[in-house]
Amino acid sequence: MRRALLLVILVPSVFFAQTPQDKVRAYRRANEHKILREFVSLLSIPNVAADTPNIRKNAELIVDMMKQRGLNPRLLEGQTPNVPPLVYGEWKIPGASRTLILYAHYDGQPTDPKQWNGTLPWQPVFRSAAFESGGKLVSAPADNEAINPEWRIYARAASDDKAGVMAILTAFDALKAAGLSPSANIKFVFEGEEEAGSSHLGEIIKLNKELLESDAWIICDGPVHQSGVKQVVFGARGDVNVDLTLYGAKRPLHSGHYGNWAPNPALLLARLLSTMKDDDGRVTIDGWYSDAEPLGDAERKAISEAPQYDNELKTQLGLRRTENAGKSLMELINIPSLNINGFSSGDVGALARNVIPTTASAVLDLRLVKGNDYRRQIQRLVDHIRKQGYFVVDHDPTDAERQEYPLLAKVMARAGGYNAERTRIDHPISLALIAAVQSTTKDKVVLLPSSGGSLPLSVITENLKTVTLSVPIANYDNNQHAENENLRLQNLWDGIETYAAIMLMRP
Amino acid sequence: MRRALLLVILVPSVFFAQTPQDKVRAYRRANEHKILREFVSLLSIPNVAADTPNIRKNAELIVDMMKQRGLNPRLLEGQTPNVPPLVYGEWKIPGASRTLILYAHYDGQPTDPKQWNGTLPWQPVFRSAAFESGGKLVSAPADNEAINPEWRIYARAASDDKAGVMAILTAFDALKAAGLSPSANIKFVFEGEEEAGSSHLGEIIKLNKELLESDAWIICDGPVHQSGVKQVVFGARGDVNVDLTLYGAKRPLHSGHYGNWAPNPALLLARLLSTMKDDDGRVTIDGWYSDAEPLGDAERKAISEAPQYDNELKTQLGLRRTENAGKSLMELINIPSLNINGFSSGDVGALARNVIPTTASAVLDLRLVKGNDYRRQIQRLVDHIRKQGYFVVDHDPTDAERQEYPLLAKVMARAGGYNAERTRIDHPISLALIAAVQSTTKDKVVLLPSSGGSLPLSVITENLKTVTLSVPIANYDNNQHAENENLRLQNLWDGIETYAAIMLMRP
Repeated sequence: MRRALLLVILVPSVFFAQTPQDKVRAYRRANEHKILREFVSLLSIPNVAADTPNIRKNAELIVDMMKQRGLNPRLLEGQTPNVPPLVYGEWKIPGASRTLILYAHYDGQPTDPKQWNGTLPWQPVFRSAAFESGGKLVSAPADNEAINPEWRIYARAASDDKAGVMAILTAFDALKAAGLSPSANIKFVFEGEEEAGSSHLGEIIKLNKELLESDAWIICDGPVHQSGVKQVVFGARGDVNVDLTLYGAKRPLHSGHYGNWAPNPALLLARLLSTMKDDDGRVTIDGWYSDAEPLGDAERKAISEAPQYDNELKTQLGLRRTENAGKSLMELINIPSLNINGFSSGDVGALARNVIPTTASAVLDLRLVKGNDYRRQIQRLVDHIRKQGYFVVDHDPTDAERQEYPLLAKVMARAGGYNAERTRIDHPISLALIAAVQSTTKDKVVLLPSSGGSLPLSVITENLKTVTLSVPIANYDNNQHAENENLRLQNLWDGIETYAAIMLMRP
Repeated sequence: MRRALLLVILVPSVFFAQTPQDKVRAYRRANEHKILREFVSLLSIPNVAADTPNIRKNAELIVDMMKQRGLNPRLLEGQTPNVPPLVYGEWKIPGASRTLILYAHYDGQPTDPKQWNGTLPWQPVFRSAAFESGGKLVSAPADNEAINPEWRIYARAASDDKAGVMAILTAFDALKAAGLSPSANIKFVFEGEEEAGSSHLGEIIKLNKELLESDAWIICDGPVHQSGVKQVVFGARGDVNVDLTLYGAKRPLHSGHYGNWAPNPALLLARLLSTMKDDDGRVTIDGWYSDAEPLGDAERKAISEAPQYDNELKTQLGLRRTENAGKSLMELINIPSLNINGFSSGDVGALARNVIPTTASAVLDLRLVKGNDYRRQIQRLVDHIRKQGYFVVDHDPTDAERQEYPLLAKVMARAGGYNAERTRIDHPISLALIAAVQSTTKDKVVLLPSSGGSLPLSVITENLKTVTLSVPIANYDNNQHAENENLRLQNLWDGIETYAAIMLMRP
């Protein structure tokens, strides 16, 4: 067996009838070092959307990368100044009547470098495996050194979502090198503000409608299925963040001299958050689940056919129990959620002091499904807080408000909220896309009615006559949005083949 | 009226029959600049007990200050290395059969310099009034400039409790200068580990019993009554801090892909804390209040005679409601409490991300009254947490524990817990002390059966045959334990007179 396998590898591939996938793979194998060098340089630029000078450097580097490929790149901007631009490029196919847009985003979530384990977010490094599984730091591969596909590259946005930019542009390289040409025009759109809520994407689309019309937007973002199987995702949850602050006394008080008497905002916040979800993690805010559109037959069938992976996941994550007991992860990401992203009051650890803090704050993450409206969902949250006896303000309370109201809450929705979007699994373009992705793997491709994560898909479909579909490529254990974000190299290699097949699909 | 007053000030005080208090006041008036220079130099040394090099510098400076006064100072140490020493000194009175120990502490609570408003904790500055009332920074008074007694000095430990060291040593200076001599021997004890729980005070006392025996320990720590009236305090609550940590998944998870399914430790902590107190702030842990010794008649009378100040306080602090509604602050500090000093999970503000955090932590402050035992009170807390379904550990959970238990809590009591202590108001030394303090003021001195704050009094009474009594001097709005700690100068001036009178009392 072993000898036979070796033989296959050693026989030059030119002697076989090559599929397009074979050709793409051969290109990638011959160019792995070059691909990783380009990826490392892209990952080395800090890419938080609010960091205007650096986010623009990212955009300019991507423009350079596309210029070298002859993709006629340009920056698309809205009217608002200092907004990260869309990087746009195109591969025009003579005579093509259809157009596909391939989308990824080049910005990443904010991160605290101190929380990374031995590496820094914008100094990409390689590890022999996942840090959590004991992966060790390894040197960047020398030119004549074989690259282990189980290695991971650690950096902010390694998976979310500069991996998308890299996979799409390298898929183009591979097709070009193999002389393969799509049947549809291919347009490239790389956004720089996705992690900040895509607040200006609609504005930029409105100003560039002609360039951005297409038969479908194919989104490269997010992880493959936890089992490692490729998946096609037909929608994404909507999302909005809400900042919540409660108030105690105007100045911090000694917990001995005033404890028992002065209200403690940390206790108030704990009690208020407790009213929002029950012991099982189900949201108890009135109407939270009432707008959600039921799934269709095709969607329910897809969920039932997806690999059962929850128990394996629980073991990996060290979880004995999950919320909404009895329901699978796949079911649960198809309903609206409420997550506490973080909360804080006073200090813990070495800086903890015997005080009654003056404020307690939480950041809430509201995920929405088709049928929900994010403004309505925020209103439900506000109504719920009022029902608990709070007077809700949009500013730190004045002395007069403090004297009038026993309980005060500042509730502020962050900019950039948007609604969920979902394309039907039996839409013709859906079917063509499923076939294209299925052509690259022997595993049965997982069909996910909606991603648990969010994408600004509704901003696209509200402004353009098109549909949106996602084909993610990252490993599921990529720590996206957290410290120690990483991409497994085999996922990048597979992603290149996936996107080459997508470019060749017949929409 | 104005002219008459001027006249009084201009007439040299030698023409009047002077009380000891007159003489002490005259000394202070003539030496305010010198007193403040010495105080500023003492406040300039960082004084967190765990900061071994700096805490020793504080002790050495106080030794120097006492050497200059001829108080025969020395450092008393225990067996444990690197523990802040007691600074000890004595004023021996020939023929005296009784001894009073005057106690203060020179260490301060930890603090985050970034939270101070425009000043730094160990760079003392003067303000024209309280920062919260618009007090502005003013230059340190020049030698020929009158000093406004409403000015405040801002620094960590300005009130808690280097004010005690300063008031006691300056009271000695004033008596010496006036040729006034106590009837009892006076010993001085300045501790360097009080804010860290006085963990080694007992050990040091045991090794130095002969030096530290006395008829009473008089503690100079804490604030005067909120109304500004002087008070004598007959006890202090006990105290112990507990660290509590709950666990979610082993790695941070994307709140979209896993929200609704993976347990969120912030929600778990909110729900667990909510079970510990009701909406009114009353502790709902079984037996929390059951050991508390009832107050005696003298104590209940003292409480009923104290000035009613709660409404004024609520206005100042911007509070419409207080906990345990209907009960006064004075009543409530005489029952056991449970305070959330701080909690944290994930991030809030600019660093907030759409993640499910891996842990959520809180620091709890348990205050105890006479009758409580801090170990028993911790056990009640642990039992309560177990009753909510948690498996309680004293370490971060292992994989095996994660697989076995759906809910895991790490509960760790911090070192340095101690019990409450209270001396009877009708004890002969209590009566003598009340008379001494009453001799310095026209207001009726407030008698407080117990301070809300804590002092390691039980460590003293368990190791020595003595009683403990407190006479605080700081302004109540001193922000002790918090950022922007300060001392109102008039409180220091009054404190000097109070302690001079105490040194002259006949125990």
